[in-house]
Amino acid sequence: MNALRQYSADALAEFEREARQRYEEYRAMGLSLNMARGKPAPEQLDMSDPLFDLTRADCGVKAADGTDCRNYGLLCGLDEMRSLFGEIMGADRDNVIACGCSSLNIMFDYISQCCTHGVDGGEPWLFCKDRKMIALVPGYDRHFKVAEHFGFDFVCVPMTKTGPDMDQLEEAVKDPSVKGMFCVPKYSNPDGCTFSEETVRRLASMKTAAADFRVIWDLAYTVHDLYDDDRDELANVFEIAKRYGTEDRFIAVASTSKITFAGAGISAVAASDANIAAIRKRMTTQIIGYDKINQLKHAYFYKNLDDIRAQMRRHAVFLRPKFETVLRTLDEELSGLGVAEWSKPKGGYFISLDVTTGSAKYVEELCRDCGVTLTPVGATWPRGKDPEDKNIRLAPSYPSVEEIGLAAKIIAVSVRLAACRALKENA
Amino acid sequence: MNALRQYSADALAEFEREARQRYEEYRAMGLSLNMARGKPAPEQLDMSDPLFDLTRADCGVKAADGTDCRNYGLLCGLDEMRSLFGEIMGADRDNVIACGCSSLNIMFDYISQCCTHGVDGGEPWLFCKDRKMIALVPGYDRHFKVAEHFGFDFVCVPMTKTGPDMDQLEEAVKDPSVKGMFCVPKYSNPDGCTFSEETVRRLASMKTAAADFRVIWDLAYTVHDLYDDDRDELANVFEIAKRYGTEDRFIAVASTSKITFAGAGISAVAASDANIAAIRKRMTTQIIGYDKINQLKHAYFYKNLDDIRAQMRRHAVFLRPKFETVLRTLDEELSGLGVAEWSKPKGGYFISLDVTTGSAKYVEELCRDCGVTLTPVGATWPRGKDPEDKNIRLAPSYPSVEEIGLAAKIIAVSVRLAACRALKENA
Repeated sequence: MNALRQYSADALAEFEREARQRYEEYRAMGLSLNMARGKPAPEQLDMSDPLFDLTRADCGVKAADGTDCRNYGLLCGLDEMRSLFGEIMGADRDNVIACGCSSLNIMFDYISQCCTHGVDGGEPWLFCKDRKMIALVPGYDRHFKVAEHFGFDFVCVPMTKTGPDMDQLEEAVKDPSVKGMFCVPKYSNPDGCTFSEETVRRLASMKTAAADFRVIWDLAYTVHDLYDDDRDELANVFEIAKRYGTEDRFIAVASTSKITFAGAGISAVAASDANIAAIRKRMTTQIIGYDKINQLKHAYFYKNLDDIRAQMRRHAVFLRPKFETVLRTLDEELSGLGVAEWSKPKGGYFISLDVTTGSAKYVEELCRDCGVTLTPVGATWPRGKDPEDKNIRLAPSYPSVEEIGLAAKIIAVSVRLAACRALKENA
Repeated sequence: MNALRQYSADALAEFEREARQRYEEYRAMGLSLNMARGKPAPEQLDMSDPLFDLTRADCGVKAADGTDCRNYGLLCGLDEMRSLFGEIMGADRDNVIACGCSSLNIMFDYISQCCTHGVDGGEPWLFCKDRKMIALVPGYDRHFKVAEHFGFDFVCVPMTKTGPDMDQLEEAVKDPSVKGMFCVPKYSNPDGCTFSEETVRRLASMKTAAADFRVIWDLAYTVHDLYDDDRDELANVFEIAKRYGTEDRFIAVASTSKITFAGAGISAVAASDANIAAIRKRMTTQIIGYDKINQLKHAYFYKNLDDIRAQMRRHAVFLRPKFETVLRTLDEELSGLGVAEWSKPKGGYFISLDVTTGSAKYVEELCRDCGVTLTPVGATWPRGKDPEDKNIRLAPSYPSVEEIGLAAKIIAVSVRLAACRALKENA
């Protein structure tokens, strides 16, 4: 296809007429499809029902160290879960705490702790009046919201195919009121890129004006590969940081929410000795211990990283065709028109779609009128405002392949219509 | 028996010699008994194994509203759990949020929220430099520690048999920097008393200088009766507070930690519309949802307060003889000597023992040398310091009846020895 902007007025009108006709046909179907959130599909959840069904006769009640998991104790979680998450996150068992069902909760609690108690004896962040966070854009709305909740302003740094634009980032952290950043270094949300080793190295070695600068290293999709023989590899941030003496800079989190049950799995935090000690100190006041029965049940099925990888291959069987359907459809419908670009992730839960500047909200509207719910446009930017109104996050995990095929076509046709409108407006 | 202080020097020496002899006999037994924490005994945990063993075939995966509990959703928890905790705590379902496994975590999060965001648009508590909390003494160490963690100083108010000394409390809250208090209004920790209706009324009606004064109403033992036909009744604080327009003053929490599994049950918070809205607002940033599978499993077995009461009667079968053994032993060994006083609770997890002023730490030491671990003396006071060194918390739930019989005798003999020492020192 030729780029749409090179079309003659007649050809453009014909292109739009055809798109409009197809759009109306889809609309008449009265669909209801949801591509808004990265939720596992029922088939993926069914895979973990053996965990649901696990009985005392199967796994007993005792952790490896003899603790009765039905009673109080083990503030830092079961050793077996700490070891497992150590493997997943690339950290020693002693540098891991296995928690409840939510890694978001761990991140929230950590930022909250920095706000009320500061870092390593430093001033509580709440007393830094013009505190700021780096916002990688496009990024994850829930990360932004934690920062917003605690009153941070944002310095936006764009994502590239190898992670954040490091030149811009290194410049931004020269401001001492810039206290930290969230990131999803593997299969990032939403664009699915994985930070290059060079990016990880620069993140570890960069000079930050704030001595208490923290990077929340959200390993949400670190084992969530779509292709077992073609997966992105993320460098071990703790190993690299040690070379620069910046291991205290990184707080890594992960969970089994998209490995076993969403919102009913196990989450964990990995960090340096000093950070784990500070988190543990807070936890001694906060909780007696997280749910060890659920940890015990998880430990029964997942003894090591190999077991996790086997489970992720089973997930990929369901997820792969969904991602491929979206990507093939976007390719068939939009490639060469010069009206959209999109990521081609090898894992994670999202595809990032950039449409003509000023058109994303209109695409969202068109989709909504056809019964296709997208992640609210703007969500990939702080405070829900995409200044160029062009980024759309697609979440193809939940609907069936058939539904996704339809939804992708509707999205593509909507992008075509929005592009026509933009071309006419700028003519 | 006559009061020990009326003994002649010879009689006292003989009394001490006998006590010393018995003490040495116990010490020679090389025991290891733990009366330190309010942990359920294995037999109590076994009672809940059907919950451990519940399968998908039994209870399905869906909440009453159709939500698949294996996936994300339901920020405020399952309706069925909200209703159940509503019954337990005396609140409407809509005023309850069902959370994770820890009510301590709910309390911590609430105080943290007040510290970072204030109450109802007011100044964040962290900015109140001389912030203080009421400490009811004797009280629960974990409550004190949350307040300490967030930098509160304490104003101590003594407990009476009907709750806090309300005259002193009403005076203390005239200081606007006194921001709140924790309490266990039914079967309080450690003295097992239940607040009288008059106390509840005065707590609801008292004038506080701080408009954002908050009472954490920890209903840890609200259904934990030892005697089904002779249980304390706690007035409904929300109903009473409504009369005075102070329903925003109270934040109630409870959990099933001592109903089903300790640290692996369900907790909940109940509060006014405004408070629930503020908590919910924070939670939208903090978590996607607590573990709904565990909530679903709990909801399957416990449909209403009657089911809970039936379970508590089963617990009482195990707990009653333990409490009665301690109380009988204290009575046999110490009654009339004028060297100790102790509570006779009808529920909860603790007995509070007051010994001769300046003797509690010595009793703890004597017990430790005999292999009996007590709750650290001082724990029932803020910062772990009992100014009179006289209060000891006994937690008889975990050891067997036989072990408790021995432990109680060792405690009693230790109290006798400590009393002799005190008498001689003051002679």
